[in-house]
Formats: sequence, C-alpha cells, structure tokens
Amino acid sequence: MSVRYLEDLAPGQLYKSPGSIRVDAERILSFAAEFDPQPFHLDEEAARATFFRGLVASGWHTAAVSMRLIVDSELRPAGGVIGAGFDDMQWPGPVRPGDELRVEIEVLEVRPSKSRPEQGMIKIRASTLNQKGKPVQVSIGNLVVLRRPT
Amino acid sequence: MSVRYLEDLAPGQLYKSPGSIRVDAERILSFAAEFDPQPFHLDEEAARATFFRGLVASGWHTAAVSMRLIVDSELRPAGGVIGAGFDDMQWPGPVRPGDELRVEIEVLEVRPSKSRPEQGMIKIRASTLNQKGKPVQVSIGNLVVLRRPT
Repeated sequence: MSVRYLEDLAPGQLYKSPGSIRVDAERILSFAAEFDPQPFHLDEEAARATFFRGLVASGWHTAAVSMRLIVDSELRPAGGVIGAGFDDMQWPGPVRPGDELRVEIEVLEVRPSKSRPEQGMIKIRASTLNQKGKPVQVSIGNLVVLRRPT
Repeated sequence: MSVRYLEDLAPGQLYKSPGSIRVDAERILSFAAEFDPQPFHLDEEAARATFFRGLVASGWHTAAVSMRLIVDSELRPAGGVIGAGFDDMQWPGPVRPGDELRVEIEVLEVRPSKSRPEQGMIKIRASTLNQKGKPVQVSIGNLVVLRRPT
C-alpha cells in the first residue's frame, strides 16, 4: 500500500489501525515510573484509595499507544504522521491493565498551505477504543501532509 | 510542601518544574521504536532527508517528559495531577538530541464542580521550554482538583 498525498485525502474518509495493542500492568507501571509517577499509575494497592479506584494507565501512555496505532494504520500520509498540534483532546474513560486498544480515524478537513506550495494540513478525529468499544481517548489533531510532486 | 486544594489555587499563579530533564538520542530512538516508529525519530541519517532535516523526539515523548516535569513541579494539586483533557496543544518547535526541557505553568481558571461538591477543575497553560528558552510544547489543559475537606 502506497502513501497518501494531500490530493488523495478527503473529508469523511475513515481509516483504522490494523489490529490492537494490549496495555498490560507491567508497562503501565514502568511508563509511569519514568513519566507520570503518581499513586494511581504506580501501585494497584495505593491506586484503590485514589480518584480512579484502581490502577489506570497514564493518559500519556494511552496517547503514545494511540500514536503507534495511528502510525500503523491505513492512513499513511505522505511525509509521515507529522502532528502540528491538537484542537482538542479528551480522555473520556480510563485504561485498565489488560485493555486492548485500537484506533479509528476520520478525516475532517483537507487544506493546501497558502505559504508552502509543497504541503498542506489535514484535520483528523482519532478515537482510541477499548475491547468493549468504549472511547478512552478522542483527539482532534492537525497533521502536515505533503502534496503530490508535480 | 503540602498539596494545594482547589481553594488554594487562583488565576495568575505561576509554577515551575524544579529542574530540567535532558532528552538524549538513545531515549528518542527507544521511545520512537515502541510508540512512534517513523524515520525522523528512529535514525539520524534517514532523518536528514525528512521534513525535520534531522533527528527529533516524538511529540508524545515531549508530552511525556513534560508530564514528568509537571508532576515534579510546585503545582502539587490535591488528589494528583489528573488531566481531563486539553483545549489546545501545540508543538511550536522540535526537540533535538541533548535538549534540556523545563516547564512553566500558569493557572488560567479555577471553578468548583456544580454536580460534584468534593472537586473542581482548573485550566492551566503549561509551556515546555528548551535550554534556549524556546517553547517546544504549549498546552491548555483541564485538571480535576479536590476541594478542601470541610
């Protein structure tokens, strides 16, 4: 499967991750020890007394796993998955040990750059879903995409 | 230093990370291999031919390091740093191997929850700066904060 240039992308297109990624307790703990050392990410026992009532993955761990799913998806923008930023990002539900995550992507907007004729931007909604189909992360992001060389 | 309840927080307050975190090439590569396997994050030589003209950290690596700096900062919200989501998140500049990152946080809004009397939300701007003082990530995020027990 080849890459998609800006000209190949259109609002309404849907793309999926090829499979899912399992988030296990061991990686939740090690990710948190490095990047987000808080009781609800570090220790099952301590987590029970917190806001989350049990161990949950750091939102940034969910975000990183979601990125891997997007990179591996059928979207394949020319030049790579290059995020310029996000208009919105929510974590509507927790990621618990053993959850299996997958991603669904919808293209919302496609626009050529006025100042840089070789590139443009797309706006996408990326929804990360667990094995029950419940969303655990929903983001509206802007990606830089190359135009087809003339 | 004790934690801050919702009542202790007010718009205009500024908090900083206690120090900085160095992002080295080795961790850029290993983070990318797991979560963001693209040429500009994986290989110095291949990265030169890309949009970024050299190796850069994954934006999610920058986000994770920024979270660590926020957790370690003087902000210390009661209940922990619990992100509900983001209104906006930008990566205005690249993170290169050897960059030293620190965070500055400004409290923008403080509001009690109408439905949950034990908690509220704060809106913060978190700016991640490199050793030259240039922003590499700027986010507007919403955190859940506990109210002082009565």
